[in-house]
Amino acid sequence: MSVSIFDSFLTTTDMIAVFDDAAIVQGMFRFEQALAAAQAGEGLIPAAAARAIAGVCNAQLYDIPALIAASRRAGSLAIPLVKELTRTVALYDKDSAAFVHWGSTSQDVVDTALVLATREALQLIDSGLAQLAQTLLALAEAHIDTPVLARTLMQPAQVTSFGWKVLGWTAPLLRARERLREAAGRALQLQLGGAVGTLAVMGDDADAVAQRLADDLGLKVADAPWHTQRDEWVRLGLEVAVLAGSLGKIATDLSLMAQGEIGELAEPSGNGRGGSSAMPHKRNPVSAMIALAAAARTPQHAASLLNTMGQQHERGLGNWQAELAEWPQLFISAHGALQALNDAFGALAVDTGRMGRNIDALQGLIFAEALSIRLAEFIGRPAAHEFVEGLTRRAVAEGRHLADLLPEAVQSHDTLRERCDAAALSGLQALFDPVAAAGAARRLAARRLPQLREQAASLTKDH
Amino acid sequence: MSVSIFDSFLTTTDMIAVFDDAAIVQGMFRFEQALAAAQAGEGLIPAAAARAIAGVCNAQLYDIPALIAASRRAGSLAIPLVKELTRTVALYDKDSAAFVHWGSTSQDVVDTALVLATREALQLIDSGLAQLAQTLLALAEAHIDTPVLARTLMQPAQVTSFGWKVLGWTAPLLRARERLREAAGRALQLQLGGAVGTLAVMGDDADAVAQRLADDLGLKVADAPWHTQRDEWVRLGLEVAVLAGSLGKIATDLSLMAQGEIGELAEPSGNGRGGSSAMPHKRNPVSAMIALAAAARTPQHAASLLNTMGQQHERGLGNWQAELAEWPQLFISAHGALQALNDAFGALAVDTGRMGRNIDALQGLIFAEALSIRLAEFIGRPAAHEFVEGLTRRAVAEGRHLADLLPEAVQSHDTLRERCDAAALSGLQALFDPVAAAGAARRLAARRLPQLREQAASLTKDH
Amino acid sequence: MSVSIFDSFLTTTDMIAVFDDAAIVQGMFRFEQALAAAQAGEGLIPAAAARAIAGVCNAQLYDIPALIAASRRAGSLAIPLVKELTRTVALYDKDSAAFVHWGSTSQDVVDTALVLATREALQLIDSGLAQLAQTLLALAEAHIDTPVLARTLMQPAQVTSFGWKVLGWTAPLLRARERLREAAGRALQLQLGGAVGTLAVMGDDADAVAQRLADDLGLKVADAPWHTQRDEWVRLGLEVAVLAGSLGKIATDLSLMAQGEIGELAEPSGNGRGGSSAMPHKRNPVSAMIALAAAARTPQHAASLLNTMGQQHERGLGNWQAELAEWPQLFISAHGALQALNDAFGALAVDTGRMGRNIDALQGLIFAEALSIRLAEFIGRPAAHEFVEGLTRRAVAEGRHLADLLPEAVQSHDTLRERCDAAALSGLQALFDPVAAAGAARRLAARRLPQLREQAASLTKDH
Amino acid sequence: MSVSIFDSFLTTTDMIAVFDDAAIVQGMFRFEQALAAAQAGEGLIPAAAARAIAGVCNAQLYDIPALIAASRRAGSLAIPLVKELTRTVALYDKDSAAFVHWGSTSQDVVDTALVLATREALQLIDSGLAQLAQTLLALAEAHIDTPVLARTLMQPAQVTSFGWKVLGWTAPLLRARERLREAAGRALQLQLGGAVGTLAVMGDDADAVAQRLADDLGLKVADAPWHTQRDEWVRLGLEVAVLAGSLGKIATDLSLMAQGEIGELAEPSGNGRGGSSAMPHKRNPVSAMIALAAAARTPQHAASLLNTMGQQHERGLGNWQAELAEWPQLFISAHGALQALNDAFGALAVDTGRMGRNIDALQGLIFAEALSIRLAEFIGRPAAHEFVEGLTRRAVAEGRHLADLLPEAVQSHDTLRERCDAAALSGLQALFDPVAAAGAARRLAARRLPQLREQAASLTKDH
Repeated sequence: MSVSIFDSFLTTTDMIAVFDDAAIVQGMFRFEQALAAAQAGEGLIPAAAARAIAGVCNAQLYDIPALIAASRRAGSLAIPLVKELTRTVALYDKDSAAFVHWGSTSQDVVDTALVLATREALQLIDSGLAQLAQTLLALAEAHIDTPVLARTLMQPAQVTSFGWKVLGWTAPLLRARERLREAAGRALQLQLGGAVGTLAVMGDDADAVAQRLADDLGLKVADAPWHTQRDEWVRLGLEVAVLAGSLGKIATDLSLMAQGEIGELAEPSGNGRGGSSAMPHKRNPVSAMIALAAAARTPQHAASLLNTMGQQHERGLGNWQAELAEWPQLFISAHGALQALNDAFGALAVDTGRMGRNIDALQGLIFAEALSIRLAEFIGRPAAHEFVEGLTRRAVAEGRHLADLLPEAVQSHDTLRERCDAAALSGLQALFDPVAAAGAARRLAARRLPQLREQAASLTKDH
Repeated sequence: MSVSIFDSFLTTTDMIAVFDDAAIVQGMFRFEQALAAAQAGEGLIPAAAARAIAGVCNAQLYDIPALIAASRRAGSLAIPLVKELTRTVALYDKDSAAFVHWGSTSQDVVDTALVLATREALQLIDSGLAQLAQTLLALAEAHIDTPVLARTLMQPAQVTSFGWKVLGWTAPLLRARERLREAAGRALQLQLGGAVGTLAVMGDDADAVAQRLADDLGLKVADAPWHTQRDEWVRLGLEVAVLAGSLGKIATDLSLMAQGEIGELAEPSGNGRGGSSAMPHKRNPVSAMIALAAAARTPQHAASLLNTMGQQHERGLGNWQAELAEWPQLFISAHGALQALNDAFGALAVDTGRMGRNIDALQGLIFAEALSIRLAEFIGRPAAHEFVEGLTRRAVAEGRHLADLLPEAVQSHDTLRERCDAAALSGLQALFDPVAAAGAARRLAARRLPQLREQAASLTKDH
Repeated sequence: MSVSIFDSFLTTTDMIAVFDDAAIVQGMFRFEQALAAAQAGEGLIPAAAARAIAGVCNAQLYDIPALIAASRRAGSLAIPLVKELTRTVALYDKDSAAFVHWGSTSQDVVDTALVLATREALQLIDSGLAQLAQTLLALAEAHIDTPVLARTLMQPAQVTSFGWKVLGWTAPLLRARERLREAAGRALQLQLGGAVGTLAVMGDDADAVAQRLADDLGLKVADAPWHTQRDEWVRLGLEVAVLAGSLGKIATDLSLMAQGEIGELAEPSGNGRGGSSAMPHKRNPVSAMIALAAAARTPQHAASLLNTMGQQHERGLGNWQAELAEWPQLFISAHGALQALNDAFGALAVDTGRMGRNIDALQGLIFAEALSIRLAEFIGRPAAHEFVEGLTRRAVAEGRHLADLLPEAVQSHDTLRERCDAAALSGLQALFDPVAAAGAARRLAARRLPQLREQAASLTKDH
Repeated sequence: MSVSIFDSFLTTTDMIAVFDDAAIVQGMFRFEQALAAAQAGEGLIPAAAARAIAGVCNAQLYDIPALIAASRRAGSLAIPLVKELTRTVALYDKDSAAFVHWGSTSQDVVDTALVLATREALQLIDSGLAQLAQTLLALAEAHIDTPVLARTLMQPAQVTSFGWKVLGWTAPLLRARERLREAAGRALQLQLGGAVGTLAVMGDDADAVAQRLADDLGLKVADAPWHTQRDEWVRLGLEVAVLAGSLGKIATDLSLMAQGEIGELAEPSGNGRGGSSAMPHKRNPVSAMIALAAAARTPQHAASLLNTMGQQHERGLGNWQAELAEWPQLFISAHGALQALNDAFGALAVDTGRMGRNIDALQGLIFAEALSIRLAEFIGRPAAHEFVEGLTRRAVAEGRHLADLLPEAVQSHDTLRERCDAAALSGLQALFDPVAAAGAARRLAARRLPQLREQAASLTKDH
């Protein structure tokens, strides 16, 4: 494995495989093979040379730790790799060896190899996002009528619909999927510039070689070599960071709602998941944990990408290399978070009873604003405000529910007693119904759900 | 001024004004006024109330430091502002006071005020970018034929065209301009969700109010309140950070080329600019300095935006407030950097003679690769490589120019002497011509320049 | 005010004053005055010149916005300031003007001015820390016997003593106070190096001048100019960041315990504090909010300090200036957080009843481990483990308290029935007493409290 | 290897080994073995159990990838490890299995294992620092008299001594060595708190067990469990980050001085080091590259440590896990940078001739300030200033050396001609001697060198 144990623990084996040493090295060989084929296609090098090169462009033939050790002295992974490739070609075909890596530069092969790995990484993320969005849309639909406390500044505030809350989590995931594709469409481009980004060696054939090479690798031809202009590349990394942020938001809410004292949600249990032998009541939110860890680290990894953009002249010293080293971490964290949430939401326990009891425990105080607005129709705003304020004070002091205090208080109020008949009073009492209180949110959700479903379907179709 | 002295020094008075305390407060009043007008338009509140509110929605009527002091206790700038606004409306019209901020929440007014300021900030950046891109395109055109050293890993590598190098700086600026507009088109949206993002108070009229309000303020209506889903907003901030990175890349190259010992570029002087009374030879690159400072700080400010995305439930505790505080810094840094580079490039000194002398000082060694490739046509690659290697060794040892050693070396080489006649030798000598060596870059530049001009023109037209 | 409105809201007027434009400029004049005095003291410049300079070293005499505007062109705040100071001295005494800033450099005056401001800032923080530690020690003492849920991975785990938890918050504050003083003792040093850090102009008198100057300003003489070796300075900034982290930890716990559904702690209310007119039940944790905001931003500001350490040669380009601009933010955030927590803990509401009810609500499951350990004495570990596992399963399934199920279960178990008599059973029941369960924590707290008191006292005495 | 290929390339095999998966897992077994031994020593568990546990505490007996896979579900590496250890002990000795990990918690074992690895990591860094400081002190001594350009804001400013410049690089390394030891002395402490940091299970024996365990592992006993109070630990990480910053400063200067156009320093060549086959003149500063990469990334890794300090209650959710994952990166980057610089400075090429020629190329303008000060003795400051200003203008315009213009200019100046005789003129000419100009720096260096030598010796002795 190519990440530390504490990283492994927070990610997926699939994503580890994408950025594995051997995978990156194989990507570099893929470039060299395709370059030779493209040059042979344009008659720049003999077809035999391209075949000879292709024959040994296989990472398994090489001693990767030795390549890495040599790269520290050489200043680039590409230099020992090209040297070993040349030497290996020469073992079979001395003449062809001179055509290895012809007209290219270290950064061409390294950047392109990382582009190829990144394409794989993005496919994993895209699939994971499709799955999570699907799960959340179903969850939202199932709970469009479920009242749950809305909380602001970490305090219970009013009532919303749990389905509406879930849609709030979903929309950024669909946006992420869309934007990642847009950013990938711009950033997954061939790097081919030669020694200083002028393609000087290949002369007038450079364009045709680049086009063949890009077609072979399934990449876009860049408008210009991007050796030290990394903006499109960095934007792609930043999109992954935004995704990590949106996943972190979901994990934040999940972890708060899963607190034992709140107990509205719980991650699935069983199969060694989140348990504690010493503490049988515990059901640790280990998926939220992984997503929160990703969200805590990724902003800094994103900052490193931005921080390395000032790459000097035609190839950066230190900053390019730092960018390469930071790059995989973004994907490793984000995919770990994404799949953790897929695990959690794939079998999430939703305790709607507890959601209701948590609302009830607030003694109707969260409905005070609604009550005040309705009462204003009878006695005007200032009086209504004053009336409700007195009522809530009593509710708090006496530990009673606002709805219980209301009838008597209406009777004790001269104007209200007159204007507010039994039917009206019953209407006021209805304000304390959580399901009714969630109505505004439910209506918003009912409109938003099909929009998001359509967006999700269209993203999946376009794929 | 609303930034510290060390920030003031690195930015522009225009951008300071955008995020000035009074400007933000005025934006909040702008929201309150427009909200009341929209609600009156829909018959939710009396037209007289909207007029009464409009009459006192003027930051100059209020004690801003007192508002700030009260906001520390209240937990939001909006709470004391709404309270003071209500109190002030009541001075003139008691009944109307009850309609202030109706159905809205603190975050609605604060977020929308920051959106309004950000729109101003983006216009400043857009203009600055248009100007800088224009200047750079003209510079590139003027120097499309100027040979200059290309440098990789901070070492002279080969020759390129200065115009091509300048186009490398320009393209990311045009992309930034484009992407900032796209991101702004998505992020500059009205915030209107009410207490918990369900628009519960305004009921069925909420949509119509939102549309009127958004139209009045010139903003987009959001698909859903974005109180705690900040992804679009953060993406906009990140675009500004990418721009700062691209400006930092330009400043890096400028500062390196302006080093006294390299002397290819110099920032304008005079009028107290970059001088040093004690050291008359100094011409400090103060514009590059400002841009480099922005590039050094902005990645971390961007990270803070990402770091605050996990906003809890329906309103964040601490993270939303941190995001607000970090936000202006991105624009303050980026605009400082942008205008500093506009100052520098507006009167940049380009020393083409020095560019040439810096090439000459490398004794032709940077042409060794080209020589080797051409010689391979006569004696095959391996022999050519060996021949050139010997030649460069001599050049280094004897401190002579490769071109000077070549004729004699050709004569001393059995095969070359035969195959390489006077015309061929003259062709080899031509490889040492910097202008010819810059040919590949010039050709790339000649194709790229009109594309970028068109992109720039189209961006300006679309505006 | 010298910070943006969103920063003002999160900090204190005291700290704003420390880094105010006028305060920094006055610090620069303080340096120039003291430099001249020191040089006159050593006979390097006429005493009359030192007096003439002293006479006009007053920020109020100068147009600070004009200085800032000029500094953008000059590349340093010091250049226009020295120029204006020289001009002003010349108005009164032409000959003395030549002695202004003699032998010094821009960075000497700017760095030293910031050192002076930082000393003030640290005194504010030291006082705030003393107060908060005092408050927390008293709180810990008052609640050394109060059982409260310990929570791991955001789930109730076992019982601890609230006093012990509070001591966990306190110790890092005392360490912070200690380390900040150590770091300040090393970092609050005079900057005096002259143009390139060699003190060339003052020759053999440089040492004596530096000593006089440092004595006058109450600063340490540095071992060497630290123009571009910022490690001690950065370490001081990082200590402030560590403090912000420790304050953020307190705020995290406070905000979690203050959640309406947990309700163990509440910030003080009244006087416009944390209230919400629309939602009378809300008591927003606005102090925790401010501390959380500081903790969310400060890591990135600290990173900027580290990121600017690579200052080139004898004076940095861009990085030094970025460091200056980031520096005040650390103190502004940290002091805001510190004083917010002082506000909160100065009148914190502790609901010990609720702490107890939250324990009870877990049906004794959190005592399962203790029960298992005690039962092992009768029937060995494996059997005890199995017995308790069965019991907890029943408790969860039937929604009953473990203690209620225990007697019958003991009777149904062949070995236990025999070995566990009434007294032993009563001993088992005692395990479910929260106060007893908090005993281990109470014992740790009882030992730790006097140690921390002593440390606090010693810090206050040393001051 | 446990880091990605792009990290491997930037670090050392020694440091990779320290944080290798198997090394961390072995550290965890080391903890479990020592815990059992300590508990047996205190009679808490049978001696036979401790022996049985010790017999299988060997990482090679376990399937590490399977442990990692299980840890993702469990939420901690410790849970499957303890489970497997228990199972393995039971294979040989069923009774002893119950005593595995007794009274401890996951975080105890994971944190302590990382402390053990960190101690190894710090020893590598300490040795590397000793070596680099030694090399730099020798370099400084060798070049105490070598004049070199001092440069400010990336422009040549005046002359300094290269030895003095090197001492500027050295002092922060000695400070780093000192502070790392201090921080390690505080942070390398045993983690032992049990489930919620109260050591409840071990009761009154907890202290004695902790002391035995700490003695066995060679660690300090903590004042209190530090499960969620990470300040000392974070400070240690930040010290490593400060070191990376100081190494980055050296690398910055090295890379600037090694630019082909400046050519004052060069990294060693040969053995595949930094070469380029296509460009024979290139000698890439690959060691500087590695150090610059470390300096570009480390600030963000440090920020992540600070960012994860708000660990909730008695064990963090997500933030603790993120901290663990970021931790090794700091050491991996710093040691890579350190050893790269040891490679570079171990065989650095210093071109003193080029240093001299770079000074000469500035036509004496950098001596203008010194000349002005000396002339003031003859004609007063204002006249001297004006005279020198005119002279420098001519030097620039005519491309001549100031020293060459001086005699004639003195003759043309009425007062100077009189007051400045041949001897005085010769004294003025001496100002243009670079060796003399470096005198002030040389004197500072001569005093500082023995101080630093002593500090280095004392650090090595203390070890």
